[in-house]
Amino acid sequence: MASSDQDVTLLSFWASPFSMRAKLALLLKGIEHEDLPEDLGNKSKILLESNPVHKKVPVLIHKGKPIAESAIIVHYIDEVWPGTSPLLPKDAFLRAEHRFWSDFIDKKVCSINLEKSTRSHAFAYAKNEEFSENYELLEGAFTKLGNEEEGPFFGGARMAFLDVMLAPYVVWIPGIVGLKPASQEQCPRLHNFFQAVLAHPAAKLALPTVEALKEFLVARSAVYRGK
Amino acid sequence: MASSDQDVTLLSFWASPFSMRAKLALLLKGIEHEDLPEDLGNKSKILLESNPVHKKVPVLIHKGKPIAESAIIVHYIDEVWPGTSPLLPKDAFLRAEHRFWSDFIDKKVCSINLEKSTRSHAFAYAKNEEFSENYELLEGAFTKLGNEEEGPFFGGARMAFLDVMLAPYVVWIPGIVGLKPASQEQCPRLHNFFQAVLAHPAAKLALPTVEALKEFLVARSAVYRGK
Repeated sequence: MASSDQDVTLLSFWASPFSMRAKLALLLKGIEHEDLPEDLGNKSKILLESNPVHKKVPVLIHKGKPIAESAIIVHYIDEVWPGTSPLLPKDAFLRAEHRFWSDFIDKKVCSINLEKSTRSHAFAYAKNEEFSENYELLEGAFTKLGNEEEGPFFGGARMAFLDVMLAPYVVWIPGIVGLKPASQEQCPRLHNFFQAVLAHPAAKLALPTVEALKEFLVARSAVYRGK
Repeated sequence: MASSDQDVTLLSFWASPFSMRAKLALLLKGIEHEDLPEDLGNKSKILLESNPVHKKVPVLIHKGKPIAESAIIVHYIDEVWPGTSPLLPKDAFLRAEHRFWSDFIDKKVCSINLEKSTRSHAFAYAKNEEFSENYELLEGAFTKLGNEEEGPFFGGARMAFLDVMLAPYVVWIPGIVGLKPASQEQCPRLHNFFQAVLAHPAAKLALPTVEALKEFLVARSAVYRGK
């Protein structure tokens, strides 16, 4: 564990992929912290005060100072606790590549496709082709950035920044009824990454099970359909 | 000027706010570079090959390696050439704040409001209230992060990361017919920032004039309306 008097609190919601990223980064580095789970239907005063612009989880509060947005939180964690499990690569060009693909996940996988896919099974089925293209682009990123001989992650044997940013989708994508995960035949590297995340001790603690997430998403989808 | 054998090329388009950010960062640091202006109606082979995922400007090519996405390019420039005009603050929390507000600009000012506002004058008029709220949030960011006694920028007397990310809107916002810039009464710090950017030598080179941009946007808006 990193030094214990860090005064770190994480405001999160268990099914939020963004929350999972922050939690995973804290666990990978062994940073002691307090979890404050949020009720998103009745947001806490501390959430509204610490992230007044977006009013969203996750928020990391370190020594009384709040940091919002998952990619920014993971950068912050890596910069303040650089010793254990470094996340961003040392090389500036590789760092730029990790940031590029993290941004790709947010733009192409997450913010547009994923949110709508959880609300409508029909939408999810219709999006399989687009997702398939995204998988192939991510497979290309693995081939370019990850050293397969060293391990299944972008960081080789251990998780790096981009692994943390992608990890929540290992449970989110199979959690969406109608959406097909990447097959081993189509994207072997991405498929291996999914298996490695599911078996990783810190990811097991930071991510819910596919079953729990599926149950949550089916219930939410029913609410959106007015059932 | 930073050392001359840097082998730096910038693929850009003059009216793109994202291109302006990359150009401004290069100029602030005095990095010698070659400009390759793009014809976005007939994209070059080098653009398609160097940014195959998004096929967008800007792309910075350094020693043959391409970096895309303006925030990532500005990070890269600051990390590879840290000596002159440092952009990201040294303090990790302040760095997180600069990243947060840069992300805010991309999410709230740029990607949704600004793009549509350029296509329809009526849309721009209707968006003034939302923009007014964005101005007040940015005014709050200036009050929190910028030291007014030191200068008009987030970086005080000189431009820092967030100044570079916001600077293009100093010409973009007044360039959109129907959109009201922040007034001195409502947002004095933001208003002063606008004036300071217009008078800044590097910004004068990196940004087009409001008049040139307005002419471009009016012509583009007419095309979208089918005129």
